[in-house]
Amino acid sequence: MTGHATDEATDTGAATAAGTGPAAGTGPAADAGTGRGAIVRAARRAFALRPYAEVTLRGIAADAGVSASLIVKHFGSKEQLFNTVADFEPAADELFAAPLGTLGRHLVLTVVRSRRAQQGDPLLRVVFSLGNSDERSLLRERFREQVTSRLTALLTGPEPALRAELIAGQLLGLGATLSLHPSGAGSLATPEHLADLYAPALQRLVTG
Amino acid sequence: MTGHATDEATDTGAATAAGTGPAAGTGPAADAGTGRGAIVRAARRAFALRPYAEVTLRGIAADAGVSASLIVKHFGSKEQLFNTVADFEPAADELFAAPLGTLGRHLVLTVVRSRRAQQGDPLLRVVFSLGNSDERSLLRERFREQVTSRLTALLTGPEPALRAELIAGQLLGLGATLSLHPSGAGSLATPEHLADLYAPALQRLVTG
Repeated sequence: MTGHATDEATDTGAATAAGTGPAAGTGPAADAGTGRGAIVRAARRAFALRPYAEVTLRGIAADAGVSASLIVKHFGSKEQLFNTVADFEPAADELFAAPLGTLGRHLVLTVVRSRRAQQGDPLLRVVFSLGNSDERSLLRERFREQVTSRLTALLTGPEPALRAELIAGQLLGLGATLSLHPSGAGSLATPEHLADLYAPALQRLVTG
Repeated sequence: MTGHATDEATDTGAATAAGTGPAAGTGPAADAGTGRGAIVRAARRAFALRPYAEVTLRGIAADAGVSASLIVKHFGSKEQLFNTVADFEPAADELFAAPLGTLGRHLVLTVVRSRRAQQGDPLLRVVFSLGNSDERSLLRERFREQVTSRLTALLTGPEPALRAELIAGQLLGLGATLSLHPSGAGSLATPEHLADLYAPALQRLVTG
C-alpha cells in the first residue's frame, strides 16, 4: 500500500480491529502477500473520491503498488471490483455484534478501534458519495440496506427506522469529526474515554 | 440556479432559515437579482466536490446560470471566490446563537430548518473535503477555527475541546444521515421531533 496523505476514505471492512479475529477476507490477514487488501483499500479510495467513469484499474493498481493484471486476476472487471468494495456487510457484522443493552458503547469502540488499527473508518466512505448522482448512488443504497435497514430490524420500541437513521448519523459524525481533527483532542483520547462521552447518546437512541 | 440531483454540498451560510432575518450577504435576501447567491452556492458545490485545480469560473458560471464575467465582477479571482465561500462564520453565528442551557436543541433545529428551507446543510460540505490534500485543506482549517475552536471557547466545564469536537461530529452526522436517507423516516419527521430525539445527546455534551 502506497503512502497516502489521509486515509479517511479507506477501510478494509474487516473485524480484526476489535480483536475478534479475521473477517470477510479483506483484512490484513487475507492479504498474505497477494496484494488483495491493498487493492481493496485503493479501490475504496478511488470509488469514493472520483466519479465511477474516471476510475481506472490502472490507477487503482498504481495506488495499491500492484499490476493491473493482478487486479483482474483477483477481482475481474472494474464493475466486479466496484461491487466487491461497495459492501458494508462485514462492517455491519462487527458493528452490530453486541446485545442491544450495550450496543451504544460497542458501536463507539468498534469505530474508534477500527480507525486506530489503521484500517480506516468502517462507514465514513459513504459520506464521500453524497452529492453525486453517478454509480456512487449504489454505495448509498448498499449503506441503507446493509447498515440502516439491518439496524432498524434489530431495534425494538417505537420508530425504529428513525432511530436507526439517527444512530447511523452519530456513527458517521464520529468518524467525520475524528477525520476533521486529526491532531485534536479526540485523537488523543482513548477509545474507552470517547465511548464514555459519546456512547450514552447512541445508547439512548438504541434503547428508544 | 440550475437543477441538481442532490444539494448536500451547498448551503448559503445564511441565517434566514431560522427566521432570524438576513445574515452575511449570501442568503436569498442578498441575491436580489444579482445572481450572487447562485454563484456562492455553485462555487461551494464546485470547491467541495472537485480538486481546486479543476474548478473553473466558467464551470461555476454555467452551474449558476450567469456569465463568468459576472463572477469576476462580484468576487474577483478564483482564489478570492474560494476564500469567500470557505467561510463557516455566518453558519456558526446562527448555530451558536442560544444560551448553553438550550444550545443542544437550538443546534438541531438550526441544522434541520436550514436544510428544509432549501438552503442546504450549514456545515456538511466540510466532510466532502476529507481525504484530499489539496487546497480543500483550507476548508477544514476554517471549520476547525470557525466552528470547533469557537465552540470550545463557549463551553464551560471539563475537556471543552474534546466535547466541541464530538458536538461538531453529531451535527455533521445529523446532516450526513439526512442526506443519505432522503426518503427516510428522518425526512418525514418535524424539526421539533428530530430535536426531541437527537438534541438530548448534544445537550449532554454541551453541559459536560
